[in-house]
Amino acid sequence: MNNPMGIGIAGLGTVGGGVFKLLGEQAELLAARCGRPLEVRAVSAREKGRDRGFELSGVRWHDDPAALAGDSDVEIVVELIGGDEGPARSLCEAALDSGKHVVTANKALIARHGNELAALAEERGAALAFEAAVAGGIPIVKALREGLAANQIQRVYGILNGTCNYILTAMDEAAAAGQEAQFAEVLAEAQRLGYAEADPDFDIDGVDAAHKLAILAGLAFGCRVDFDAVHVEGIRRVTGLDIQFAAELGYRIRLLGIARVAEDGIEQRVHPAMVPLSSPIAQVNGVFNAVVADGDYVDTAFFQGRGAGEGPTASSVVADIVDIARGIRLPAFSLPAARLASLPVVPIEAREGAYYIRLMVVDRPGVIAGISAALRDQNVSVESMIQRARAPGEPVPVVMTTHDSVEASVGRAMAQIEALDSVVEPAHLIRIEDL
Amino acid sequence: MNNPMGIGIAGLGTVGGGVFKLLGEQAELLAARCGRPLEVRAVSAREKGRDRGFELSGVRWHDDPAALAGDSDVEIVVELIGGDEGPARSLCEAALDSGKHVVTANKALIARHGNELAALAEERGAALAFEAAVAGGIPIVKALREGLAANQIQRVYGILNGTCNYILTAMDEAAAAGQEAQFAEVLAEAQRLGYAEADPDFDIDGVDAAHKLAILAGLAFGCRVDFDAVHVEGIRRVTGLDIQFAAELGYRIRLLGIARVAEDGIEQRVHPAMVPLSSPIAQVNGVFNAVVADGDYVDTAFFQGRGAGEGPTASSVVADIVDIARGIRLPAFSLPAARLASLPVVPIEAREGAYYIRLMVVDRPGVIAGISAALRDQNVSVESMIQRARAPGEPVPVVMTTHDSVEASVGRAMAQIEALDSVVEPAHLIRIEDL
Repeated sequence: MNNPMGIGIAGLGTVGGGVFKLLGEQAELLAARCGRPLEVRAVSAREKGRDRGFELSGVRWHDDPAALAGDSDVEIVVELIGGDEGPARSLCEAALDSGKHVVTANKALIARHGNELAALAEERGAALAFEAAVAGGIPIVKALREGLAANQIQRVYGILNGTCNYILTAMDEAAAAGQEAQFAEVLAEAQRLGYAEADPDFDIDGVDAAHKLAILAGLAFGCRVDFDAVHVEGIRRVTGLDIQFAAELGYRIRLLGIARVAEDGIEQRVHPAMVPLSSPIAQVNGVFNAVVADGDYVDTAFFQGRGAGEGPTASSVVADIVDIARGIRLPAFSLPAARLASLPVVPIEAREGAYYIRLMVVDRPGVIAGISAALRDQNVSVESMIQRARAPGEPVPVVMTTHDSVEASVGRAMAQIEALDSVVEPAHLIRIEDL
Repeated sequence: MNNPMGIGIAGLGTVGGGVFKLLGEQAELLAARCGRPLEVRAVSAREKGRDRGFELSGVRWHDDPAALAGDSDVEIVVELIGGDEGPARSLCEAALDSGKHVVTANKALIARHGNELAALAEERGAALAFEAAVAGGIPIVKALREGLAANQIQRVYGILNGTCNYILTAMDEAAAAGQEAQFAEVLAEAQRLGYAEADPDFDIDGVDAAHKLAILAGLAFGCRVDFDAVHVEGIRRVTGLDIQFAAELGYRIRLLGIARVAEDGIEQRVHPAMVPLSSPIAQVNGVFNAVVADGDYVDTAFFQGRGAGEGPTASSVVADIVDIARGIRLPAFSLPAARLASLPVVPIEAREGAYYIRLMVVDRPGVIAGISAALRDQNVSVESMIQRARAPGEPVPVVMTTHDSVEASVGRAMAQIEALDSVVEPAHLIRIEDL
């Protein structure tokens, strides 16, 4: 058995506490798998005196997380503070700069500063690992960097936010029971049950999923992580009515992150999408996450598991620690940082695919003719249409699905349609993905 | 860029040819990912002159695969001959013995001789890698050895044979169309389409799945691979009628491999099982494979992909080569060979769970009373019963599902029931798995 490996943990919240406990509870197993014991030698968190339900005695305490970077007993710094700037960023930079390995679950940090951190790690001969930053317990970073390394990945996509998936699944269930669940109510219930944060914007608005998608795209395509290039839409505008129509049309609505190599560059987008009920991704329910990678040799590989929570996230953080203790040193994004490509961004307006369009119209003669003319003018052809009367006097939903169309044309058609007198609210547009 | 890594390939059939082509087509990508070029320097196969659709010029030819073990230009021997004895085994032993790394897709070899080969590899400081031996393109070996390394795995199970899954899916489809497909006809059709081998016994009888399960169990539980401990049943006795009843009861029939840590040892079994329609494993159709691992921290991780075929298998073989070229050296079964446990085998008779029982009976007074008495005598309690008349004069199916019962008791009850005059054929018994 070799010398123990010294670990310092910054942040002792849910995930940090989970990692601390896991390292204790599985110490023997981990020592056998690593060929050396893993020892937590130092920690840093906000309140020293707080009762966390586990014993910190024998472990050095640093009030300032940055001190971990200078602690000579620490070989691996585990950053679980969170946030893309501030102490998390400074700690990771300082630790790598002094040649210490860094393991983090911080998706915002990696999505924003992953390129620079990877280059720094490489320069200093240190490892930078972030399995827990994407899709919680699913070992997808390793799969893309190693398991699928023989492939050119053409597309990677998935359900990357458990809160959104929980909400959409609850809305599905309501629809199946014949009710029209409203987003705000389901969100409130999710918050009550602990599946959504008190401040849910990052999840609900798709930002969290976009962080993860940007990281996946960097890994999958060997390109520089480019969070700003991700087109992001959240799930606030998904209504119970749309969920009902989706089911009627043979689809389910999921918040997807999709990154794809196109002819002119790469596409990265997060938005609600209709997926065929028969596709594996449509079967991913509740808080689960899933990632699908399409490669030129492997065809398609599908990964599903828990996307968050103390245990699954700690499992991934410790898997990274085990890799480092076993001596695995790979470039963070699979390729040396200098070789990561800067690929052109394909704008969302260039997307070509099918669309679900729901309009609320006042039911009077000529309405459909006006809508049809606008679509024809923009070269958008309709595949199916559902028109159903509601209570008299109320606006009526008109639902259409299109054949493959260019997003820019659909947008122009919508502008023309929304200008019609009989169309009473902005169009509800959901992309249909043929997965 | 470092020195090229020399590769020797033994066997140029579908998989060997696929690996050869992949290494050529992705040479640049692989060199970038490995930090060094991968060069095929020698090959060995049965017929030198055969037209394989790719050029072997510039590559040394060995008539005897064993010569690869002595070829000083070869650092990694890729064994794609197949078979658990003969040239495949000798080559792997000789290569490892001379300190060369071995990559193989040979499940029979690893299931039978994995322990000894792993020990030899370790002794000689060489890598032994077999990602392609289990579930084709799915990087499940890596996931268990590395991605989930922080967990005690309590159970690993999956659909490990694409031929069987293709056949069962075809029978599902027939049942959904109101037809009662017969196994032999579906098998013949699968053979015609190339989804089943001309000699399908290894697949159909569950042996192939059992090889893979034994390897998964060794990896997941840190124990010695013990193929002989696997209880194996194939799918020959699954009838169209059972598929129809399964659907009616809310189940699908899949050939599963299940390995589980029980109180008294480990359970390893391959057999047709009924799984709830709502479980992800029930959604795995056609030639796809899937593996699920349950760990104490990660909860559950689900992996799905192509289980066979040139591209997916080559993808996994080359992933192993990439690992080795990147300098990754891990014990083949995650723990040093000397630390792999020899765990007691829990016999199939000790299984506790629910059962589907189909009896064919002559419909006369007292039949059900006799059956019920036998079940009561053995302490097997019935959860549901379906009795449906068929054409007059023909035996009638009586279908029951049980509450959780011990397999030995169910077996004794069946013996008693099969001895009844009115029961005209052996009971059809399918285990129900609550997954």
